[in-house]
Amino acid sequence: MADAKWLRSKKDDEQPAANNDHLVQSDDPNHPANLIPSLCAKFWTLGWVTGTGGGASIREDDLVYIAPSGVQKELMKPSDIYVLSLAAQAQSLDRRKRVYLRSPPNYKPSQCTPLFLAAFTKRRAGCCIHTHSHWAVLVTLILETQGLGKNREFRINNIEQIKGFGRGFKKSGNLGYHDTLVIPVIENTAHEEDLTEFLEEAMDSYPDTYAVLVRRHGVYVWGDNVHKAKTQCESLDYLFQLAVEMKQLNLPWITDIEPVVPRRS
Amino acid sequence: MADAKWLRSKKDDEQPAANNDHLVQSDDPNHPANLIPSLCAKFWTLGWVTGTGGGASIREDDLVYIAPSGVQKELMKPSDIYVLSLAAQAQSLDRRKRVYLRSPPNYKPSQCTPLFLAAFTKRRAGCCIHTHSHWAVLVTLILETQGLGKNREFRINNIEQIKGFGRGFKKSGNLGYHDTLVIPVIENTAHEEDLTEFLEEAMDSYPDTYAVLVRRHGVYVWGDNVHKAKTQCESLDYLFQLAVEMKQLNLPWITDIEPVVPRRS
Amino acid sequence: MADAKWLRSKKDDEQPAANNDHLVQSDDPNHPANLIPSLCAKFWTLGWVTGTGGGASIREDDLVYIAPSGVQKELMKPSDIYVLSLAAQAQSLDRRKRVYLRSPPNYKPSQCTPLFLAAFTKRRAGCCIHTHSHWAVLVTLILETQGLGKNREFRINNIEQIKGFGRGFKKSGNLGYHDTLVIPVIENTAHEEDLTEFLEEAMDSYPDTYAVLVRRHGVYVWGDNVHKAKTQCESLDYLFQLAVEMKQLNLPWITDIEPVVPRRS
Amino acid sequence: MADAKWLRSKKDDEQPAANNDHLVQSDDPNHPANLIPSLCAKFWTLGWVTGTGGGASIREDDLVYIAPSGVQKELMKPSDIYVLSLAAQAQSLDRRKRVYLRSPPNYKPSQCTPLFLAAFTKRRAGCCIHTHSHWAVLVTLILETQGLGKNREFRINNIEQIKGFGRGFKKSGNLGYHDTLVIPVIENTAHEEDLTEFLEEAMDSYPDTYAVLVRRHGVYVWGDNVHKAKTQCESLDYLFQLAVEMKQLNLPWITDIEPVVPRRS
Repeated sequence: MADAKWLRSKKDDEQPAANNDHLVQSDDPNHPANLIPSLCAKFWTLGWVTGTGGGASIREDDLVYIAPSGVQKELMKPSDIYVLSLAAQAQSLDRRKRVYLRSPPNYKPSQCTPLFLAAFTKRRAGCCIHTHSHWAVLVTLILETQGLGKNREFRINNIEQIKGFGRGFKKSGNLGYHDTLVIPVIENTAHEEDLTEFLEEAMDSYPDTYAVLVRRHGVYVWGDNVHKAKTQCESLDYLFQLAVEMKQLNLPWITDIEPVVPRRS
Repeated sequence: MADAKWLRSKKDDEQPAANNDHLVQSDDPNHPANLIPSLCAKFWTLGWVTGTGGGASIREDDLVYIAPSGVQKELMKPSDIYVLSLAAQAQSLDRRKRVYLRSPPNYKPSQCTPLFLAAFTKRRAGCCIHTHSHWAVLVTLILETQGLGKNREFRINNIEQIKGFGRGFKKSGNLGYHDTLVIPVIENTAHEEDLTEFLEEAMDSYPDTYAVLVRRHGVYVWGDNVHKAKTQCESLDYLFQLAVEMKQLNLPWITDIEPVVPRRS
Repeated sequence: MADAKWLRSKKDDEQPAANNDHLVQSDDPNHPANLIPSLCAKFWTLGWVTGTGGGASIREDDLVYIAPSGVQKELMKPSDIYVLSLAAQAQSLDRRKRVYLRSPPNYKPSQCTPLFLAAFTKRRAGCCIHTHSHWAVLVTLILETQGLGKNREFRINNIEQIKGFGRGFKKSGNLGYHDTLVIPVIENTAHEEDLTEFLEEAMDSYPDTYAVLVRRHGVYVWGDNVHKAKTQCESLDYLFQLAVEMKQLNLPWITDIEPVVPRRS
Repeated sequence: MADAKWLRSKKDDEQPAANNDHLVQSDDPNHPANLIPSLCAKFWTLGWVTGTGGGASIREDDLVYIAPSGVQKELMKPSDIYVLSLAAQAQSLDRRKRVYLRSPPNYKPSQCTPLFLAAFTKRRAGCCIHTHSHWAVLVTLILETQGLGKNREFRINNIEQIKGFGRGFKKSGNLGYHDTLVIPVIENTAHEEDLTEFLEEAMDSYPDTYAVLVRRHGVYVWGDNVHKAKTQCESLDYLFQLAVEMKQLNLPWITDIEPVVPRRS
């Protein structure tokens, strides 16, 4: 880490230069500090990050870029972004203390930070998105009424959009049309940071999932890179919306369909 | 007030210069006269200010900026904005007469004006937003059928987005996940100005609320500044939409949920 | 009409110059030939003119500007606009034949033309909008099931947005909160032009209406000028949407509410 | 084909120049390589191509332009487009092997390709659009519950928007208001390419249809040109949405309505 390229002014103590603003300054629209604001503006129009809720984070190698707490997501600027180092974080003695390489002047760190870090460290994700989408919340509310114990799951099968998800961590390829997509649901906690242990437990119990629903709160979705996290998040929101609409029409989420056999194959 | 900086041409009588156009001319996109049009254009896309309904007002120190009546909200210009002085207004003998520092040539003052002023004078709000959102109206219609007397309330708890609201007037911090958000509902009056006394009563009865629903009409939402008023208004609209969708799915707005205890805390 | 300013090249016969392109060329964004495309693009995002359905027309004095048939409404250009003269039209012996001052090269005239003309001639409207909005169609379908005879009406009262409508033809002021908004519904015909006589009948029977619903088809809305037609159309669509949502929640469109008496008045 | 103008560098073998990038480079916004990205960006806002689902293809004479697989549809660029030759394709011995004139460097061909080709070869379509629209999927789910056998149809009549469809292949004119629009539904297959034979069967069985629904998947819509494919796709999505809303309100899709006879005709 001593040679890390982001460290312009080497310091004697563990804490790096107070203000590494160059970490969030780039002309490249695909630089994480530019991409997070443009993604969040798009997510705002989708109703995913209403009223400063939700957020997004991108990891590039050792560096993690995070939207701050309490910002209007459609108005975010690159200069609002926090940056931290996974390696520095791993060396920190206090798991709950974050070591930021770069902090914006007028914001507080996002309470989602340890949850994003879980996706980066436990799954080597390149991007993690957190939405408060109505559809995600409604799905958890519908499941809640079905009295199946606390450790619940959202399950849906035989919908083409399921193909939008990878088959699992370190597995190649995507789910198939007839596969059942399973998303674990964890209960919400009073403080968002306290969700971390439950999110990590769900990751352990569902090693192939790319998302965890949080009851009465929203969803965390990740992927190997921005493209995969974003398209998996879109596909999941599509499926949540469809599931709510299916519920309104009394259509079941799980069906037993005999596969169609192509005659020429 | 004699030294007020907005007063370019001092006059002998109480009425200030007829046309203080400089009050609405600025290159700063965050100047209230620029911000109100850009906010209202955004609100139009959200369905909050359809067909000239609804409105918004910003207070900076003594000056209050108000969108005019009957304007297409997505087409508003800075030159359409009214400006008045709270101090001058307080000195007016006739409570119903408004003393405008600056008036646009082709519009009438908004009937919402005394309601905005209530938020500014009784709560020291920095911004007040009035929407005709479908979700707000539907929530008041659903409540109406529940026969709980006229002095009704919208109540919801155990939804993460509730954290989007401040704990109350002069109180620091925000509501928690398990707190119940309570928004008073007042009955609509034939003339919007006549709502003022009922809005003020609701403010007195609910000293910590940042919003008042108006039956079959919409909602007034305010905050210490534009950021807080806008994000609270978004969060509230999110909750109203969720509440209507929950009603369609027969899900209760108030639940008794045992808090999750984090194991590591 | 001999001195009409739009007539650049005087001709001997009744038919004016074949191609008065100057009638649709202007730098003024509020010129009807510019305004119709920008309005229609906006209407497309609202779902009012999906798939080339619907349309809009503006009248300025004697001249009527009309969107053509079969155009993608969000892509329309000023050069696509038809122009005709009300005076020339009135002199035409064949009521069904239209005398266009200016025709675009690649389109056919809109079948809505005689319906727009009805609003212009019978009501002196300055603008008429025709939408295929889902909400309008659903309202007519809901009414259809109520078996009240063919000559049906949409009625709603005690909703603030009702104030968005003028009190009636040649009457000043707008409807009040407690007034009942009444919109006549006519049955659809196989050919859109054949609606004209029924639309005109509805105008005669409901002299104060600014809109006529067409069963299983959409709505025609007009106003004294573009501003009024557009905001009345928005307000009506808002009310149609609300009415459908109220129906889904079993809430009645008409209620008997005792007016609130302001104490200070 | 030897003289085909797209062939800049003639080669000895059947395979044309590896990288005919000029085929997707044009300043004309209506060039297929520019039009597909702009259309897909629009479709993304409509929810038709969420999470890389869906797609679009345009044919000009012998050349077919196709969006690649797995691309974020609102971010697509002209350089992402595949181009193939129908004539070259027809000469290919292996029906499943595609001969691309131009391939983007970083993508895989769309699995929709043979389905698009079916529309181009069997119907001489100029454009084919594939959406994953919720409304299309919900319509197929609603039909599924009605137990009418596998060879199902979506049928709706007496809605004005039905006029948005051509009367049929090689027939002039559009459907009328009282005509019944019939869209065949085929069952989904595990692999999208395997849909081809069933799509072609549906085309044979419904020679006049411009669309085929795919159960639990979406819809394929085509037209003689981009304008017709796009407006027919919009009209169909409108009707699917209306049909779902009608179902929620217990309104039938097919009704027996006596035509209104115009008195003056």
